[in-house]
Amino acid sequence: MAEEQFLAAAVDAAKSAGEVDLVTETDKACEDLIFNHLRMLYPDHKFIGEETSAALGSTDDLTYDPTWIVDPLDGTTNFVHGFPFVCVSIGLTIGKIPTVGVVYNPIMNELFTAVRGKGAFLNGSPIKTSPQNELVKALMVTEVGTKRDKPTLDDTTNRINKLLFKIRSIRMCGSLALNMCGVACGRLDLCYEIGFGGPWDVAAGALILKEAGGFVFDPSGDAFDLMAQRMAGSNGHLKDQFIKALVDAS
Amino acid sequence: MAEEQFLAAAVDAAKSAGEVDLVTETDKACEDLIFNHLRMLYPDHKFIGEETSAALGSTDDLTYDPTWIVDPLDGTTNFVHGFPFVCVSIGLTIGKIPTVGVVYNPIMNELFTAVRGKGAFLNGSPIKTSPQNELVKALMVTEVGTKRDKPTLDDTTNRINKLLFKIRSIRMCGSLALNMCGVACGRLDLCYEIGFGGPWDVAAGALILKEAGGFVFDPSGDAFDLMAQRMAGSNGHLKDQFIKALVDAS
Repeated sequence: MAEEQFLAAAVDAAKSAGEVDLVTETDKACEDLIFNHLRMLYPDHKFIGEETSAALGSTDDLTYDPTWIVDPLDGTTNFVHGFPFVCVSIGLTIGKIPTVGVVYNPIMNELFTAVRGKGAFLNGSPIKTSPQNELVKALMVTEVGTKRDKPTLDDTTNRINKLLFKIRSIRMCGSLALNMCGVACGRLDLCYEIGFGGPWDVAAGALILKEAGGFVFDPSGDAFDLMAQRMAGSNGHLKDQFIKALVDAS
Repeated sequence: MAEEQFLAAAVDAAKSAGEVDLVTETDKACEDLIFNHLRMLYPDHKFIGEETSAALGSTDDLTYDPTWIVDPLDGTTNFVHGFPFVCVSIGLTIGKIPTVGVVYNPIMNELFTAVRGKGAFLNGSPIKTSPQNELVKALMVTEVGTKRDKPTLDDTTNRINKLLFKIRSIRMCGSLALNMCGVACGRLDLCYEIGFGGPWDVAAGALILKEAGGFVFDPSGDAFDLMAQRMAGSNGHLKDQFIKALVDAS
């Protein structure tokens, strides 16, 4: 069926990009490689990429057409430093609905995949979110982002301060896509980030997390908006407790 | 020579503990295994371990005798969650001076080793700290610790807030010993933690970081005290800038 072919195409593109990227260190060349790979197979599809959007100075609106949403290198700071949390992220929306997701970490050789309605996988084996149902025992991952103005940083650290009274501990690993996959496979229980780069950071991870039995939502508790640069995620048990904690911390 | 034999004994103990621990999930059994291994070889040496100290309710004073300082499992929260930053940490002091250090991450199969004056190694290959000499580009790792009282948490997040204006970004990975090794091998540029568990968290990592060309010091800029539960570390270039930033953030 078409969705399985889309998945296979995304996996191929991610793996070839993962190899190239480590050599070229050129995000744009890597994005071109992924786009060219997919465009050859699906010339009528649309494409949204981090590097293309950066070059244009804006992100194309998401339409109902099949749209590949690509981050050729999530975790650029990590990559520059040799810190192992880096990945290629490729998502496909059809009718604005996330339908295929691939996140590939070439350093740790971990390939996370999902097709809508078909579950989530790590290197081909099914994954599911953690059984943790007590917020006080939950391990949460987030990032401080790249903005360094005082209002943003104060909001960021005040929120962390308030959340730390309610959870077990916090991790920051430098890749939102991998953070979502970490919750998907149960290594982490909760994640959130406010003010990240764009839909390329979450298009694949959101589907993988949902297909693994988790929830993806706006930190306010509203529905997740792929284009809003705000996300929160949980395992299958902690969504309501986490929303309350996030709202109380805002 | 004796120091190389001590190193080989520590590596053997760490590796056997790394295997057992993943099965038993019993920190105490793992510490016993390490102590028994080393005590058989060195019956006159002294031993300080996290689990033994926890059971006693206090940590033995560090003496001038050869003393093995052991954390059988650093990163317990990570271990419980399956998050891959966990390690066995084994340090040896002679005359109170860190002389041998071994940090072994059995999940990522990374073995960090150092003998005083002989350099630091990752899986047998020499490592050195990063060349980064601009604080604003530095990647810093820290932890929020386990204390959840308001004064401690406020200090913790206020310090992070102030530091974030001066550095590139922050990571939190859940193992102080591995954080120090991360700086040692150049994946990270700076680390600090205030109020950690005890000397077992830093005895091996401090030597590995120093032998890799980095610096280990008290966050105030004073000399590092292995027993003080306060540490900061840097690559070979950023010590003075980092101390100023830490002092300004206190």
